Amino acid sequence: MVKDMTLKDAALIVQKFGGTSLADATRIKAVAGHIARTKRRGYQIVVVVSAMGATTNDLLRLAVDVSSFQPARELDMLLSAGERISMALLCMALADLNIPAVSFTGSQAGILTDNIHTKAKVLEVKTQRISQALVEDKVPVVAGFQGVSEEKEITTLGRGGSDTTAVALAAALGAEVCEIYTDVPGVFSADPAIVPQARKLGRISYEEMMEISVSGGKVLALRSVEFARNHGIILHVRSSFTWETGTWIVQEDSSMEQAVVSAITSDDSEAKLTIREVPDRPGVAALLFRSLADKAVNVDMIVQNISKAGTTDISFTLPKDDLPAAMEAVNGLKSQLEVCEVIADTSLAKVSVVGAGMKTHTGVSAKMFETLANNNINIEMISTSPIRISALVKEEMLEQAVRLLHSAFELERQE
Amino acid sequence: MVKDMTLKDAALIVQKFGGTSLADATRIKAVAGHIARTKRRGYQIVVVVSAMGATTNDLLRLAVDVSSFQPARELDMLLSAGERISMALLCMALADLNIPAVSFTGSQAGILTDNIHTKAKVLEVKTQRISQALVEDKVPVVAGFQGVSEEKEITTLGRGGSDTTAVALAAALGAEVCEIYTDVPGVFSADPAIVPQARKLGRISYEEMMEISVSGGKVLALRSVEFARNHGIILHVRSSFTWETGTWIVQEDSSMEQAVVSAITSDDSEAKLTIREVPDRPGVAALLFRSLADKAVNVDMIVQNISKAGTTDISFTLPKDDLPAAMEAVNGLKSQLEVCEVIADTSLAKVSVVGAGMKTHTGVSAKMFETLANNNINIEMISTSPIRISALVKEEMLEQAVRLLHSAFELERQE
Repeated sequence: MVKDMTLKDAALIVQKFGGTSLADATRIKAVAGHIARTKRRGYQIVVVVSAMGATTNDLLRLAVDVSSFQPARELDMLLSAGERISMALLCMALADLNIPAVSFTGSQAGILTDNIHTKAKVLEVKTQRISQALVEDKVPVVAGFQGVSEEKEITTLGRGGSDTTAVALAAALGAEVCEIYTDVPGVFSADPAIVPQARKLGRISYEEMMEISVSGGKVLALRSVEFARNHGIILHVRSSFTWETGTWIVQEDSSMEQAVVSAITSDDSEAKLTIREVPDRPGVAALLFRSLADKAVNVDMIVQNISKAGTTDISFTLPKDDLPAAMEAVNGLKSQLEVCEVIADTSLAKVSVVGAGMKTHTGVSAKMFETLANNNINIEMISTSPIRISALVKEEMLEQAVRLLHSAFELERQE
Repeated sequence: MVKDMTLKDAALIVQKFGGTSLADATRIKAVAGHIARTKRRGYQIVVVVSAMGATTNDLLRLAVDVSSFQPARELDMLLSAGERISMALLCMALADLNIPAVSFTGSQAGILTDNIHTKAKVLEVKTQRISQALVEDKVPVVAGFQGVSEEKEITTLGRGGSDTTAVALAAALGAEVCEIYTDVPGVFSADPAIVPQARKLGRISYEEMMEISVSGGKVLALRSVEFARNHGIILHVRSSFTWETGTWIVQEDSSMEQAVVSAITSDDSEAKLTIREVPDRPGVAALLFRSLADKAVNVDMIVQNISKAGTTDISFTLPKDDLPAAMEAVNGLKSQLEVCEVIADTSLAKVSVVGAGMKTHTGVSAKMFETLANNNINIEMISTSPIRISALVKEEMLEQAVRLLHSAFELERQE
């Protein structure tokens, strides 16, 4: 499987290093050593860095200390200092190994974004300076997570932003592969902290990775995987501590032997909100979810059931952090919706089964529900996609559910 | 005296805050409070900030940890992160006080420099964005110490660079005054740590301040004072801890009552190098000092004496840090100069008497030398300018010399 992934001679590789990979001087020197080795093997390399381990949290703590609120523009200015520090230090460490390197801010690297501070979108990548550095046989080291708007304002790309920078650069430069270095060896069949027998996946499709990301996998943010899929960029998630081969994320093709189920994921960050006895008439759901969207509440699963004649119960899940905004939205609609009762439940968690082969195999959901039922784990809500089934269970049953499903689908045995 | 300095209504003030003034969240909030008070009094304000207290040293320590040498370009990239952090935090603290503020990097503020990394010179200031912010009644908060070159490279301005940024902005914007906030209440007649009776000077000329800076005063770097003089920018050095009126640095004019002597300064950072028995022929000194200049050795005092027939002794002082480079330069010339002996002395220090009135008063040097002689303090070297006399003495006698001279010129009594 790994053999398929052998790179062309002199291929261009984008290597992205996260905060834990650059946590201190020792880690930065280790990363420089790896870049030097890769370069000596004949590859062209463009490096993308996050801020050093604790930097972002330290800066945010200072921001809270000086002010009760943080204007988004200034928050971006503040946080963008983090990558400057790590990229300059990495260039120095490379210089120490006789590898000429040159750092570029998001702006210098030509990462042009819209003007939405703290969650800007990449509009265009102007690669002239990076290409010039490559021509001069230098390693460009680019600040991840940050860009510049048309109004010359510093922006940041939000959660997973450095991965997005790496993928966008890989696309713009026509890289062979985008390597995402992190503190784990790859994407696993389940969280090894919960399932010690969990297996590192050798290769999965973009779609599977996206489903893993939305259902609780923390290795890659959905957005960067989506970007990679849309631009056909092969991702390789791997460890900057062991340097072993990690997980390849590629276009699904007919020659791929598809596992029916690839991974069991878990997510305890969501809450469930139930609105009881809403009038059962057209437009009610539209009104509710428009109002939630206006408050930027990120709704995940939605279930609607008739409860008693003429009324319906609507339940949905959302990030626990969004609960205050959601309650505000719902309370604002109370008279319009003639609602008597709103119930928030924060004691639930989501377990999901993900696998590209599900599309052509039946019986996965039956097996999932049976496994949970046989172990007296009650399912509160269900949602599905073509390659994922998610079930909401009591939070205290979550780890047991993950272990039972991992074993039921024999994920420890596959290769 | 202070009354002369009353500012026009709605005048534009540049306020520069140094690292100790922004050392932590408490100090940043105190600075924000002062800016808010100044603004409520009707002034327009442009703020210039240094990096927070320990930031620069922390970053430099990391740089040394990751690499045995620091490419200048990457050092600039690294250090320029410091002001980003302090300016974003200050803008947040201002927002918390309902003062709209907007931060600008050196590049965004239009500080255009040459391309000499770590000691760039300001070539031009393009004030469009700052002027626009002022029109919008926002307080522009500008990163000191940093600029951008024509090649779009991040540069830093070297020692005292934030003061230079402040003065350059004050000149470009036509500010009434440039306030330099620091951790001392102004410029003193001597270092109060050495002379407890030292007096804060109410007002001094640019020339006096420049002489104080070159002879050991640490409050302002020579370069920023020179820049202020060349552009006629009034400086006001004052405390960000007590907020009291400090020292005004202004154009000397005939109406000013000139103190004969304003200040006694001291400097223990220099070493003395003596080259014995150099052939006494034309071109020898030129050869020596060209070679030192090529190694960027910053020579201060120079004395040449005939020692024995046909040869001469050349002595000069230089920063102790430049001693290795100077020894290298001298050793490289040994055969050409037919030198037998080179003596480095690091046990000396310099005491200086500064005063604009010296130009029109005689007897200052006589009084200085008598005072030192009467107390058995031997003078190793002397150098003078029209308004300064410096004497090199044994380092262990330095503090006593400063106290004796401060008393001899009755500096504790003047106003």
